[in-house]
Amino acid sequence: MRLSRYFLPVLKETPAEAQIVSHRYMLRAGMIKQASAGIYSWLPLGFKVLRKIEDIIHEEQARAGHIPIQMPTIQSADLWRESGRYDAYGQEMLRITDRHDRDMLFTPTAEELVTDIFRSYVRSYKDLPLTLYQIQWKFRDEIRPRFGVMRGREFYMKDGYNFDLTKEDALHAYNRHLVSYLRTYERMGLQAIPMRADGGPIGGDYTHEFLVLADTGESEVFYDSEITDLKFGEREIDFDNVDQCQAVLEEFTSRYARTDETHDEAVWADVPADRQRTARGIEVGQIFYFGTKYSEALNAVVQDQTGAQVPVHMGSHGIGVSRLLGAIIEASHDDKGIIWPEGVTPFHCGIVNLKQGDDEADAACEALYATLTALGLEPLYDDRNERAGGKFATMDLIGLPWRITVGPRGLKNGVVELTSRRTGESEELPPEQAVARIAEIYGVAQAQE
Amino acid sequence: MRLSRYFLPVLKETPAEAQIVSHRYMLRAGMIKQASAGIYSWLPLGFKVLRKIEDIIHEEQARAGHIPIQMPTIQSADLWRESGRYDAYGQEMLRITDRHDRDMLFTPTAEELVTDIFRSYVRSYKDLPLTLYQIQWKFRDEIRPRFGVMRGREFYMKDGYNFDLTKEDALHAYNRHLVSYLRTYERMGLQAIPMRADGGPIGGDYTHEFLVLADTGESEVFYDSEITDLKFGEREIDFDNVDQCQAVLEEFTSRYARTDETHDEAVWADVPADRQRTARGIEVGQIFYFGTKYSEALNAVVQDQTGAQVPVHMGSHGIGVSRLLGAIIEASHDDKGIIWPEGVTPFHCGIVNLKQGDDEADAACEALYATLTALGLEPLYDDRNERAGGKFATMDLIGLPWRITVGPRGLKNGVVELTSRRTGESEELPPEQAVARIAEIYGVAQAQE
Repeated sequence: MRLSRYFLPVLKETPAEAQIVSHRYMLRAGMIKQASAGIYSWLPLGFKVLRKIEDIIHEEQARAGHIPIQMPTIQSADLWRESGRYDAYGQEMLRITDRHDRDMLFTPTAEELVTDIFRSYVRSYKDLPLTLYQIQWKFRDEIRPRFGVMRGREFYMKDGYNFDLTKEDALHAYNRHLVSYLRTYERMGLQAIPMRADGGPIGGDYTHEFLVLADTGESEVFYDSEITDLKFGEREIDFDNVDQCQAVLEEFTSRYARTDETHDEAVWADVPADRQRTARGIEVGQIFYFGTKYSEALNAVVQDQTGAQVPVHMGSHGIGVSRLLGAIIEASHDDKGIIWPEGVTPFHCGIVNLKQGDDEADAACEALYATLTALGLEPLYDDRNERAGGKFATMDLIGLPWRITVGPRGLKNGVVELTSRRTGESEELPPEQAVARIAEIYGVAQAQE
Repeated sequence: MRLSRYFLPVLKETPAEAQIVSHRYMLRAGMIKQASAGIYSWLPLGFKVLRKIEDIIHEEQARAGHIPIQMPTIQSADLWRESGRYDAYGQEMLRITDRHDRDMLFTPTAEELVTDIFRSYVRSYKDLPLTLYQIQWKFRDEIRPRFGVMRGREFYMKDGYNFDLTKEDALHAYNRHLVSYLRTYERMGLQAIPMRADGGPIGGDYTHEFLVLADTGESEVFYDSEITDLKFGEREIDFDNVDQCQAVLEEFTSRYARTDETHDEAVWADVPADRQRTARGIEVGQIFYFGTKYSEALNAVVQDQTGAQVPVHMGSHGIGVSRLLGAIIEASHDDKGIIWPEGVTPFHCGIVNLKQGDDEADAACEALYATLTALGLEPLYDDRNERAGGKFATMDLIGLPWRITVGPRGLKNGVVELTSRRTGESEELPPEQAVARIAEIYGVAQAQE
């Protein structure tokens, strides 16, 4: 993308309403614009990151064998009355009356509707296991929306639901989701720690939240320092393998890690004092096993091997997709702006032309742009007639992890400058080597010449 | 995907409520399930096609230089009061009151909000031209939703908005959209004819609707038969080139083609009688130029070259994304089911194992599945223990354009059967040749061995 043709409305001033750094930078980098309280438009740069995160989630869900669907945002109140949640949900549910005076609502979560889909079609244990998920806009009418996309009213969320014959099978689904989420967050450059959680209004005995450590986190967290050394890494997992998934669960949840909601001083005391850590954390996902709570309420039964009709065991599993942008920025920024992890960066690198209009500089930039694009990468080329300082400030603010700087002086020596946003370190090297380095960083194969 | 692990709830019975063929087949093929009147859940097969259509639209919009954003579904009523449309819109607008008693609405279209985004950031003619678009869920509270996704209440739509300094520039944007839409529909296997349209409630002097000919279309259409010979084809277009885009517009709109709303008997009489055709058509898109209607109402002005503040010239451009699934099926089916065009088929081909459990048949199917998958294609492998007749019926119903049938008898002779869903013609050939044919059809490069 050429910046002269893009829509990147960066702000010089820090918006007064933004209290936390991710909100400030998302506004200043032209990623979002508030439409009304707690409701945002996603401008091009923000939408691009949102899609990258969405794509990673879809890929990882497919790897785990989960199947994507899409449920509507507007639902009838009927199913929610059947489950008993219509009255229980309170004012956070956005309630709507349609032109025929029917009670509708903007869905905050979809246990009822997905269970209705299941019960309409599935009759036999032979069709299990089954996990359906969606990535869809949700609405919760928060009384005081704040912190930008971190606590908005309209938000984008991945919500998945497993249907299994037995508790044992459903706990495998639970473990499978835990493993899948670990992979998912790591691909986004995040360390998200599974912490024992409280069932809350959805209920459930087994539940973990995934928390990203950040000073601005809404929860106080207590953990054994050994936990931050764990990496999922490149290990191969067979998601059908019960033992493998169980082993990962045990590895990642056997050490103490809890939020203030579930913190237990007695257990905490058993953690060696030199490994006790307290910090703040941002919740970016949660997994639940809640058994037959909804299948019994909504009569979602299958025939088991003996011919008996039994309610299915279920769980639900969520990732806060729009919230993740905030969490990533909270975890990865400096005083100049955002620092995107390579996995979610909106553009793979920036190209800064120090002297727009200079024939050689223009030609070198165009060549870099064409070569990188041909490799399937997306560079953002700042081709505007601006001072170098302004171009650098914009690149730092929007946080592309790599920048190639091109100017007449370097070109005389046959070099451009490759700069890491994270370390600030620069290196002079010939343009083709800069391309090779970027290609290597992103794992893109370069044709031999 | 292996069918044994997929969620494809096909129905044997034709649902009583479905009056048109696309609605019947979408229900029977397990693509959608009604959640409430005019509101659907998209089951895995339907969601997959929806995403393919969405991807094509994003690719073609990028080619035309248009920039994706995402606006929220829930908007404040304030902007709609500013434009005067809040009261004018009538009962089709879903009106909502939030917990703080503020008037909100589920957006049926986004001229107001996108204009607000524009006016918040853009000050100068130098930042033009600009076209922003989104693909987002919309809601229109139809009094009698019907025909499945063809006239639903919650629907998925691409809506784009151009901002230009002059009428001339805005008409180039109009032409650019027309060209882009022609390419977009052709990639989906559709012939969508631009027809002169009526401005309607959005207003506008220049507007064309795109109609797909189908017996169940809601509009009566009148056209010169020469128009159906026009193909956009593989021609290279420079979307910045005003003359090229204008020439395409003239080529595709100079012959008579109108709906009953704009039909003019006097002009119609000039079409040679042997070329006059009447038919029915389904609207799948519309483009508008409406000048300064919204920019004046909402004060979206820029500084022009003389320093004067002038309202921008705008247009809006829509594609009915969810509706397109219905339109494609109406245009491409037979009495056995859907016939997907290759560009939007949910899976590239089916693999039918005639004797599941037979070692050789199983191995041959697995090898085909692995080879096709390695090529980046998505086969749907029917690995269930079902009779061949049932497997064929399912494949015909869900409409994958190509089927590879594998059975012990053929394998003895070293062959499988490749069948075209469209023609019904079958050919026996060695498995590797079947793969080569599928790869060729989808333009996938096969490595030399």
